[in-house]
Amino acid sequence: MNDHEVFVDVSYCGMCHSDLHKINDEWSVTPMDGTKGYPMVPGHEVVGKVIAIGSKVTKIKVGETVGFGPQRESCSNCSYCSEGIENCCTGFVGLYDTWRDEAKKLVHYGGYATSITVHENFTFPIPEGIPLEVVGPLLCAGITTFQPLQRLAKPGMKVGVIGIGGLGHMGLQYAAAMKTECWAISTSPSKEAEARSFGAQHFLCSTDEAAMAAKKGYFDVILCTASSNFDMKTYLQLVRPRGSFCLVGLAPVDKPLGFRPFDIVDGEKNIVGSMIGGTVSMKEMLQFSADHKCFPKCEVVDFKDCNAAAEKVLNNAARYRMVLKIEGFREQQNKA
Amino acid sequence: MNDHEVFVDVSYCGMCHSDLHKINDEWSVTPMDGTKGYPMVPGHEVVGKVIAIGSKVTKIKVGETVGFGPQRESCSNCSYCSEGIENCCTGFVGLYDTWRDEAKKLVHYGGYATSITVHENFTFPIPEGIPLEVVGPLLCAGITTFQPLQRLAKPGMKVGVIGIGGLGHMGLQYAAAMKTECWAISTSPSKEAEARSFGAQHFLCSTDEAAMAAKKGYFDVILCTASSNFDMKTYLQLVRPRGSFCLVGLAPVDKPLGFRPFDIVDGEKNIVGSMIGGTVSMKEMLQFSADHKCFPKCEVVDFKDCNAAAEKVLNNAARYRMVLKIEGFREQQNKA
Repeated sequence: MNDHEVFVDVSYCGMCHSDLHKINDEWSVTPMDGTKGYPMVPGHEVVGKVIAIGSKVTKIKVGETVGFGPQRESCSNCSYCSEGIENCCTGFVGLYDTWRDEAKKLVHYGGYATSITVHENFTFPIPEGIPLEVVGPLLCAGITTFQPLQRLAKPGMKVGVIGIGGLGHMGLQYAAAMKTECWAISTSPSKEAEARSFGAQHFLCSTDEAAMAAKKGYFDVILCTASSNFDMKTYLQLVRPRGSFCLVGLAPVDKPLGFRPFDIVDGEKNIVGSMIGGTVSMKEMLQFSADHKCFPKCEVVDFKDCNAAAEKVLNNAARYRMVLKIEGFREQQNKA
Repeated sequence: MNDHEVFVDVSYCGMCHSDLHKINDEWSVTPMDGTKGYPMVPGHEVVGKVIAIGSKVTKIKVGETVGFGPQRESCSNCSYCSEGIENCCTGFVGLYDTWRDEAKKLVHYGGYATSITVHENFTFPIPEGIPLEVVGPLLCAGITTFQPLQRLAKPGMKVGVIGIGGLGHMGLQYAAAMKTECWAISTSPSKEAEARSFGAQHFLCSTDEAAMAAKKGYFDVILCTASSNFDMKTYLQLVRPRGSFCLVGLAPVDKPLGFRPFDIVDGEKNIVGSMIGGTVSMKEMLQFSADHKCFPKCEVVDFKDCNAAAEKVLNNAARYRMVLKIEGFREQQNKA
């Protein structure tokens, strides 16, 4: 532990689909990711209790409940870092990225662990009122959907959330709490009731051609959380002139997303990329989530059952986030 | 001529590549365009002298020199119209679009003609100091590049213009006059000298892999005027985090533009569509062009030689815009 780091006993760690991509080494060939497979300990949705701090730590106290999300480090010198949008810093280091910097041979381990050490700058105190077991997914699924909505949506705007899964069920809650006209957009009519329970006021079934045609040019903002291949052209037609179609999913897609210049030049539409959020948004997201009770729906499993949990995520059977309970695990192991 | 229209003797009409797409009926199948081929008179880069006005015209006087661009009409009631960004109005009617509205059976003729009648709202007085023969291309190539740069670029920003053609040579002039760090990006090293003559301070050859790699994440704004198929993924890498890659070309592309979510999610980049500009931008563009002497490089040909001019545009041999000289044509014809 260096002078600016905090040492934390992990209570819970959420399981993100990207953990599975990493475990299966599906991202090592992409420009996004400078990491190279293994050794690796996944987990970037971490919450726990601070049990020690470095000598120069000023922001965090021993005994505090804190969380960590997907980012561990940034350059701390660039314009993005000074604005608190460190997620855009080219010096981005993931909570468990390894060897992004060949020279440094960095190896950072994630939160599928009984303890973790992280720089205080990326350690977030957890506001009162958030159940401990849902904190982890907020720090990834939560920020991934909160930040672009905060950036793009205003009260009264027509907002569509594509995909009612781990990300989408948070997007719906935030879009509703931000007082937008909140629509769930899904291929599965069977998801309507649950989508409404998360705050959707309206439901658009994307396989219903007539319903889709009726909503051409309707949405100010579409937040696309779909992770498998999808027909972007069709969704772009739903966006109103000067509106935004926002991509947040990082799943590897078999085919590139395709569109024609017409699809966005006509109506001056925007395709916007968004990736988690910086420290400013993280703090705002946590407070907003506490204030508006925007919490992920989680299934908590014991740490020892993490492989079964991973199967469930891989099979898209998680409703909606799997969370590993890690507190007490060490004691159990010692007893056994 | 109705009460709000002006009747104009055409002096010059620029030849836009889209006129050729229309002549060859290449756009009638796209969602962009509700028009259906013929009858059709092309030409949406028109300048001439007002010789009569309708009884309710208040903005335009007989004798004035005025211009018309690609838009003839809008709904005049929506939020876009009230902001003067009528180019985003869903009631957009092109200067020579026909039958967008099946019920009305509208047929509007363009500027390859000795006279033209247009609503005063889309009639633009021409500021002093702009040579008459370059006005036409300003109203299309000029606004197409000026408006997105005005929207996205600020002084000091690093701006790249892809493609040094009819659009690109205007983009370079505007980017330079807006005091950005102006780069020309082209596949042809042979275009460097001419690009610099238009205001480019730097030249990036897109087939030079090392030079391209050195500029990853460098540009705040890239204005892509490329009209044939191009590798968008490679260009997206040049854009800095939160920067914009702006598409303005409407040429039909054989293959959809492809990218992976990674390409814009990492760095939260934006792909922005832009299409000409509304009446507010049109007026600003004309004044800015006059003030900064941002003029298209034109080759003027007699109206009777319009087929030869079209060949030149089709063969990408125009340097950089072809303009038809129409004034005096009627008298010549009468004499002959």
